[in-house]
Amino acid sequence: MKLDNIRIVMDQTFHPGNIGAAARAMKNMGLSSLYLINPKSFPDDEASSRAAGALDVLESAHVVSTLEEAINDCSLVIGTSARSRTYPRPVLNAKESAEKLFNECEQGPVAILFGRERMGLTSQQLEACQYHTEIPAHPDYPILNVSAAIQIFCYEIWQANNNTALKAEQASNIKASYPTYKETQSFYQHLEETLTDTNFLFKNHKGEAMTRLKRLINRIRPEQKEVRMIRGALNSIQDVVKHQKTEDK
Amino acid sequence: MKLDNIRIVMDQTFHPGNIGAAARAMKNMGLSSLYLINPKSFPDDEASSRAAGALDVLESAHVVSTLEEAINDCSLVIGTSARSRTYPRPVLNAKESAEKLFNECEQGPVAILFGRERMGLTSQQLEACQYHTEIPAHPDYPILNVSAAIQIFCYEIWQANNNTALKAEQASNIKASYPTYKETQSFYQHLEETLTDTNFLFKNHKGEAMTRLKRLINRIRPEQKEVRMIRGALNSIQDVVKHQKTEDK
Repeated sequence: MKLDNIRIVMDQTFHPGNIGAAARAMKNMGLSSLYLINPKSFPDDEASSRAAGALDVLESAHVVSTLEEAINDCSLVIGTSARSRTYPRPVLNAKESAEKLFNECEQGPVAILFGRERMGLTSQQLEACQYHTEIPAHPDYPILNVSAAIQIFCYEIWQANNNTALKAEQASNIKASYPTYKETQSFYQHLEETLTDTNFLFKNHKGEAMTRLKRLINRIRPEQKEVRMIRGALNSIQDVVKHQKTEDK
Repeated sequence: MKLDNIRIVMDQTFHPGNIGAAARAMKNMGLSSLYLINPKSFPDDEASSRAAGALDVLESAHVVSTLEEAINDCSLVIGTSARSRTYPRPVLNAKESAEKLFNECEQGPVAILFGRERMGLTSQQLEACQYHTEIPAHPDYPILNVSAAIQIFCYEIWQANNNTALKAEQASNIKASYPTYKETQSFYQHLEETLTDTNFLFKNHKGEAMTRLKRLINRIRPEQKEVRMIRGALNSIQDVVKHQKTEDK
């Protein structure tokens, strides 16, 4: 089933009860793919007890030690954020995120990231996301418990799944094919190398330029083919640089 | 604020943590009015810890010992149900219920009832509701944790509050005024007395007739004025019966 391609990724969860509650929320709404990055305690009785009838989701959860392991093969990564935004990205509401995840899960794995209780995601983790998302909430106390937030996203994903209009769109569209997280990182590295070769970037004084470029590229969301084309252009630049260096000798 | 008129009513909650999580879910979404019918343990440290920044909602919670105390002054009562329906009522989804609660909270208190963990509401409690509501969920495991369910309803209520179209409707409409739960009960009693007087009902063999009539009236949802008019008619019938009895003597 397509919904298995939608990953819930929880970073450094402190209270094991929240992992159990998340597993239950997922199963209630037809999801099954749970990734835990360095959970404080897992497996744990409190997690199993709160999971109730969703022990299977807990048992098949992937415990990993880096964000990359959780998202390397994902073409879409959405980060949940509670507003501190050093690096602004497009911000979706819960329903919009759910529809995006649902629409793209047909193609391959996609993920939504949840930070540690009280802390949320780090700026670096948010940088890894194409979109940020927020649950609309009362300004007096907008911070939801992490498993409650997961419940809302899973609910909206299930609503999207029940929305026949969205289903038809998913079925009929010839979809763009987006690079995975890993491919994107490799593209960034290629870009950085090339721009260092051309002396636009300086190896030991990177400054903000790469961050700005990544943000820009993220906003464009180039397709796999487009990334391949740009990398072709980068190769041609690198060839010129190499040739010049040879001539300079 | 209008949202204070929307009551979350939890019946016989077994795990105090669920009460705390409910309080947090409510405050996150701008709600504050929590009624607890015979909670197993309250106040309780586990409830306070799960409430986090919503201790004020817990502290102002009303602890009562009957459903009536929680809903007597409510003109709209919606019951959450996990499908066993001996007495079918119109079933709304979470979004529809939230919009109904939001639309009518302008006029006075309205309530949504949540049953005990694993048990749900009793048939008798469901009888007290004008509508039943269900959260759409995966058929393999559709039973949500009670505080997770409350989170979804509160989220949908906050969505309704942010929906400017609904807001305008709420502001501009000249609203029907509905009888409170207590007024409705008194109307039912009046009807039952009258139909017993006319020998349509028999005091010690009530049968299903009254239940069917209540269900019918619930479906019509008469306004306060209409109830008053019908009760006028009932009075006229009772007068005739009394007069006849006097003549028979």
